[in-house]
Amino acid sequence: MLSPVIGATITPAAPSSITFSVSGLTILGIMGEAPKLAPDESVAFTRCVLDAVAGRIPVVVGVSTPGLDPMAAITEKVMELGAAGVMVAPMTGLNTDDKIAGYFHAVCNRLGDTPIVLQDFPPTTGVWFSAALLNRLFAELPSLKMLKHEDWPGLRKISQFRAAEASGARRRVSVLVGNGGLFLPQELARGADGAMTGFAYPEMLVRVYVMHGAGDAKGAEDLFDAYLPLVRYELQAGIGLAIRKEILRRRGAIACAATRKPGPKLDADDLAELDGLIDRLERRIGI
Amino acid sequence: MLSPVIGATITPAAPSSITFSVSGLTILGIMGEAPKLAPDESVAFTRCVLDAVAGRIPVVVGVSTPGLDPMAAITEKVMELGAAGVMVAPMTGLNTDDKIAGYFHAVCNRLGDTPIVLQDFPPTTGVWFSAALLNRLFAELPSLKMLKHEDWPGLRKISQFRAAEASGARRRVSVLVGNGGLFLPQELARGADGAMTGFAYPEMLVRVYVMHGAGDAKGAEDLFDAYLPLVRYELQAGIGLAIRKEILRRRGAIACAATRKPGPKLDADDLAELDGLIDRLERRIGI
Amino acid sequence: MLSPVIGATITPAAPSSITFSVSGLTILGIMGEAPKLAPDESVAFTRCVLDAVAGRIPVVVGVSTPGLDPMAAITEKVMELGAAGVMVAPMTGLNTDDKIAGYFHAVCNRLGDTPIVLQDFPPTTGVWFSAALLNRLFAELPSLKMLKHEDWPGLRKISQFRAAEASGARRRVSVLVGNGGLFLPQELARGADGAMTGFAYPEMLVRVYVMHGAGDAKGAEDLFDAYLPLVRYELQAGIGLAIRKEILRRRGAIACAATRKPGPKLDADDLAELDGLIDRLERRIGI
Amino acid sequence: MLSPVIGATITPAAPSSITFSVSGLTILGIMGEAPKLAPDESVAFTRCVLDAVAGRIPVVVGVSTPGLDPMAAITEKVMELGAAGVMVAPMTGLNTDDKIAGYFHAVCNRLGDTPIVLQDFPPTTGVWFSAALLNRLFAELPSLKMLKHEDWPGLRKISQFRAAEASGARRRVSVLVGNGGLFLPQELARGADGAMTGFAYPEMLVRVYVMHGAGDAKGAEDLFDAYLPLVRYELQAGIGLAIRKEILRRRGAIACAATRKPGPKLDADDLAELDGLIDRLERRIGI
Repeated sequence: MLSPVIGATITPAAPSSITFSVSGLTILGIMGEAPKLAPDESVAFTRCVLDAVAGRIPVVVGVSTPGLDPMAAITEKVMELGAAGVMVAPMTGLNTDDKIAGYFHAVCNRLGDTPIVLQDFPPTTGVWFSAALLNRLFAELPSLKMLKHEDWPGLRKISQFRAAEASGARRRVSVLVGNGGLFLPQELARGADGAMTGFAYPEMLVRVYVMHGAGDAKGAEDLFDAYLPLVRYELQAGIGLAIRKEILRRRGAIACAATRKPGPKLDADDLAELDGLIDRLERRIGI
Repeated sequence: MLSPVIGATITPAAPSSITFSVSGLTILGIMGEAPKLAPDESVAFTRCVLDAVAGRIPVVVGVSTPGLDPMAAITEKVMELGAAGVMVAPMTGLNTDDKIAGYFHAVCNRLGDTPIVLQDFPPTTGVWFSAALLNRLFAELPSLKMLKHEDWPGLRKISQFRAAEASGARRRVSVLVGNGGLFLPQELARGADGAMTGFAYPEMLVRVYVMHGAGDAKGAEDLFDAYLPLVRYELQAGIGLAIRKEILRRRGAIACAATRKPGPKLDADDLAELDGLIDRLERRIGI
Repeated sequence: MLSPVIGATITPAAPSSITFSVSGLTILGIMGEAPKLAPDESVAFTRCVLDAVAGRIPVVVGVSTPGLDPMAAITEKVMELGAAGVMVAPMTGLNTDDKIAGYFHAVCNRLGDTPIVLQDFPPTTGVWFSAALLNRLFAELPSLKMLKHEDWPGLRKISQFRAAEASGARRRVSVLVGNGGLFLPQELARGADGAMTGFAYPEMLVRVYVMHGAGDAKGAEDLFDAYLPLVRYELQAGIGLAIRKEILRRRGAIACAATRKPGPKLDADDLAELDGLIDRLERRIGI
Repeated sequence: MLSPVIGATITPAAPSSITFSVSGLTILGIMGEAPKLAPDESVAFTRCVLDAVAGRIPVVVGVSTPGLDPMAAITEKVMELGAAGVMVAPMTGLNTDDKIAGYFHAVCNRLGDTPIVLQDFPPTTGVWFSAALLNRLFAELPSLKMLKHEDWPGLRKISQFRAAEASGARRRVSVLVGNGGLFLPQELARGADGAMTGFAYPEMLVRVYVMHGAGDAKGAEDLFDAYLPLVRYELQAGIGLAIRKEILRRRGAIACAATRKPGPKLDADDLAELDGLIDRLERRIGI
């Protein structure tokens, strides 16, 4: 069973000795470089991460791919390696509630009792879930254990999702938010259980979560707002991945910031701009 | 009350003395030039058509527009002029069953008891209706009188729509097909009531409908297949409108084939190609 | 001739006695409620704004619409009323450099010597301009006077646009940024001339611009960052319009925050969340 | 060097003893089931086809995939196995001429001197090539040997492409058409060299090509029109694949018509409809 975790999406590169204070990890999500890996590389990368984590925290592995057979094959491999579960975003082209439901029934049927995180990420997949459809899916499919919420905009949907539980419509389901955490304070206030998203300073996500849970919503939001200029900067489509990798490199988390081809590359203007934003952050949080 | 009609979409140009054998007309649909007209022109064009038709057949007027107030204003005007009803396609951006339902509830509420044709035309609107959603809408909204079916591909949906009626799930609803009639024989066999679509030879649509209704499905399909090369040719996005207007001009239905700017224009190659296709049609049907 | 202005997009509602410190206004852009107005309302609203402004600052009027004839008709009316120019976003479906160029040649040809702001807003229009294409358009079309830049992400494009000018490739062109000002400090540093975008606190945009121009880039960014949580909040697609109108209502700029139907509406959770964000802003900037 | 071929896209299933009169084959295109295969399966399928073909005709292998490294790895394998070249469609998200050009430069640079078919297939990729961009790419990149043309609508583009060659703008390039051959007679008349597309009756494509080349354009079009109802029927998005496989199964080309999951399935209504269409075809062509 998956517990509510705060994850950090790590892009495929050699994991380092960085001390993780996160309570879980998600790897090979769809906004990083996973779609540019061959299945063998995905499995090798998963093994590398699981070895480094050594069972200290649960690791969820993204397995979204157009065919159910390759999805099942990679799922079997990563679960054998010790993954806590897999994450599945819907394939493109599912444009009605019934088509989406049919797809997740097929996925759950094929993956057996593997714990699954449903990734609701319409800006990239083009597949939109209503709150009613989410209720239906989580009621019908017990192997769906968690919602990764990255609808856009999606604040009201979190409230609707929690209201459905409060009314007894279905079991309680963990909700971790994505989209780089752009609305994390608001999302926690509306009932999210944490974040499962990429950001080059995952300790901010953790601390906001902890402070919020300890009743210090104001302090949590103050901390969040200090990082918001960089959250916003990293969220730029395409080039955001190069920005995140460059910050992770500077912080010693990865050895090389190159993105897999074809991929974005920072130029001198970008690097100078990033220098300025990091400098502002460090002065603001007093490093 | 709207009766099942076979319509012909007429693009905005002076209607002529052409003898209509169709049992109804739909004007100002979204694939023609309606979006390029100011509301005043739309009303003037409607008046012109209604004057020429002089009550002999019902005329449905497309009123799709982003705002409900302008939609209501033009609806009121065309209904006063004698339209039989209006046609509404969903606005863009409705990407869940619940959002689509909310939209049509708002439309029906705003337009009162005006008879409405629901236009299901996802290739252009980007809004997709499941069969279940159509059942829900026609059950909940009595002023929705007819379905203009142009889903793509959409043959199975007609069967599902009729199956829902056969099971008593809701009242029977007229289904007229669009998409240039590309699958008219198959659609009639699956339960469509006729066609409401643009094609430069509307008499073919009428005759296929009549022959099919008289039990001569084979003869109907033979006739349809003779026109299929031109049906296909007219269905080309963008330039198809210029093709249709040019054929209508040659047939004496309109005086000028120019499309409203910015619009497609036929060049010498296109015109020669069209000559060849028309010549083949005329030899095949023995004109 | 249009001078570089800092504009504030005002949604259609009764303009009030608010003191504008902006150096220009743009009305009837595509993210507000303009598409939900009939042309007559657009003209009436323009008249109302121009009367209130009384010539103190230039006013640009958005005239984007699918047909060139209605675009020309409304352009003529608003220019007669005293608009400084019009803004045109490309119609949807222009998917190659040549199609986009053909469109703007047709627009400029049709609108004569009316000064035109080219709106580069791909997230909404689906039409993408390369830097090379912008160079071509501004070189070929003298009535294009200004670029409203809201590509996403678009920071590098501003640098490329200025580099082309520095190399003598074409005349200098004013660049005002949109997207709610989400990257205003970075955009000014890369050469933008100001902002032309909607935000419920336009005085922030003005002050950031002024401080940046006076050499206080750090102070400008500090001020910007204080508002960033609300900039981000207002940028939510759909509901962002209701948020902006509600803030404008609270600030006394408009009398009623209702959005035109079909439109978004704030619920109790949204209003409480907004209360909290405004409260945080006011404490941070010391109101 | 690739010669102009008439190809038939074969979906992944055991190739049989059917006698091919085609002059080439393309396998693993993007509309079949290639995206649902793991790379190992793709290579195994390629080996199986190449063994069956045994060098009698050239075989092109589709290698479109988001990452250049996996693309290069599979290209190397299939070229070693004896493929004549590879086919590459642009990755999604390339929305300006310059981005598309950058992508193909990167691809050609990575694949060395492997002969490449450029697949211009915007309805599926969402990437649009102007005629000017095609001229630029084929002038700049010598390893691009052939254009698979499936723009929609695309007739004029073939004329433009040939006109550029006639004017000496660049070397002559083979053009094979796709889109199920829906406009094959028109495309041949405009200068296409043949077809490279899926259709369950590839002998029709061959015969139309041969008759057209022998000067019997009328006879070619008569033959084509006899098959047009089925060409149209197979072109239905999604379900068209199930239809094609079912016909190929009935014709003895494949042993099983099941599609890879998640995939479309024919129901009783579909099968009856298909029976009728095949029956009509056979009576019309006198089988």
